[in-house]
Amino acid sequence: MDKIVAEIGETILGELCPRMAAPVVEAAPPLNRRQVAQLIDHTLLRPGAAAVEIRRLCSEAREHGFYSVCVNPARVGLCVGELQGSGVVVCTVAGFPLGASATETKLAEAETALRLGATEVDMVVNVGALKDGEYERVRAEIAALAAICHGSGALLKVILETCLLTDEEKATGCRLSVEAGADFVKTSTGFSTGGATAADVALMRATVGPDVGVKASGGIRTLDDLRAMVEAGASRIGASASVAMVQAIAGDPRHV
Amino acid sequence: MDKIVAEIGETILGELCPRMAAPVVEAAPPLNRRQVAQLIDHTLLRPGAAAVEIRRLCSEAREHGFYSVCVNPARVGLCVGELQGSGVVVCTVAGFPLGASATETKLAEAETALRLGATEVDMVVNVGALKDGEYERVRAEIAALAAICHGSGALLKVILETCLLTDEEKATGCRLSVEAGADFVKTSTGFSTGGATAADVALMRATVGPDVGVKASGGIRTLDDLRAMVEAGASRIGASASVAMVQAIAGDPRHV
Repeated sequence: MDKIVAEIGETILGELCPRMAAPVVEAAPPLNRRQVAQLIDHTLLRPGAAAVEIRRLCSEAREHGFYSVCVNPARVGLCVGELQGSGVVVCTVAGFPLGASATETKLAEAETALRLGATEVDMVVNVGALKDGEYERVRAEIAALAAICHGSGALLKVILETCLLTDEEKATGCRLSVEAGADFVKTSTGFSTGGATAADVALMRATVGPDVGVKASGGIRTLDDLRAMVEAGASRIGASASVAMVQAIAGDPRHV
Repeated sequence: MDKIVAEIGETILGELCPRMAAPVVEAAPPLNRRQVAQLIDHTLLRPGAAAVEIRRLCSEAREHGFYSVCVNPARVGLCVGELQGSGVVVCTVAGFPLGASATETKLAEAETALRLGATEVDMVVNVGALKDGEYERVRAEIAALAAICHGSGALLKVILETCLLTDEEKATGCRLSVEAGADFVKTSTGFSTGGATAADVALMRATVGPDVGVKASGGIRTLDDLRAMVEAGASRIGASASVAMVQAIAGDPRHV
């Protein structure tokens, strides 16, 4: 009887507050330098960044073996050229950072980026439509982006901009993303009122399950920040201070 | 001789520092409530704004006779419907707020908005390309946007994001915009590190001359702010606190 009550309680909690029902997360196993680097989208999205800074981003990504560089669409061509043969992929953004472009604009943006050689697209969800409860509109937009990304062998991440959402809206955004075929959900643009939190990452991981990626981004500046996100369930990290993070591993006994 | 020296000095100053050589601006004549309202793009670009807030923006614009509403592309259709027959036009943005989309994405964005009924498009300049000295790229992008806007009888404004630029870059951005056929230059997105300043507006007005518009936007919250911008040379104001501004006119002896 106790067991049944506990199960019912858990189910209700799971509906009302996915965060509380998230599986207890084990401490992440020690990661070596290469494993940490391979978690990272090495990111430079400042609009005033000059070409020389973008080239430096690419050479750092080559040197440290980051998974990707994440840059604005106007810099995709430059990065694809710089990173030829390096194994580092090029990630870009669509509808960024407000998510308030028309669907066809986000599609055009993704198409252009894929044609230039980007293999990951981080789109921003239509936050206004999500808040308005226009779920079919939100889902259809993500599905359309997923279709063109997958048609090019690229991945789609959906940025929810968690700092603007209630927990219920975060969970809904995750569910719509999964239903629409997104490969990742992602916390933040880094251009709004807040960045990634471990609580949000745990909520997102609990909602999307083990088979969809969770990217934590926004305000992740240290190796400790990165570890906290991975322990909460993140499978990718967006960061600008990535070089300092991998350099910090040398002196950290939790990494081998 | 003194006159020649003064003229040479003025010319050199004009090259080195357009702000100092800006014409002395006369105090603006008293503006009545309708004239103030007609200077204002009544603006709501927060990504989390719900439909009900956008509808309120439109009804305020109708009631107070603002020149336009300025909204994100995903809200253009809603606003065109709400404002039918009101005389208030719909202004939207392209490549907003980073300016770092591909040119073809900004074009697609403008095309979609024009088709839906927007009649003013505020594009963000490619800030990175401007800083890199890629002037032909910057000018060609603006010219392409100007062509499709003018083809639809719409106006194009070019947001320079002045807070990210040196004075020299601001002046260059203005010159490229004029050469490319833009109808307005505009200071700021309101999403970066700073907004409009009277000094920047004066520099922009001095650079573009009397026949191109200057829109001041970002951080303009009071009737005094608005007056300072108009006195510095602004011919359009982007603001969210627009209702409070026109309401403040009643008690202000400088307005009739």
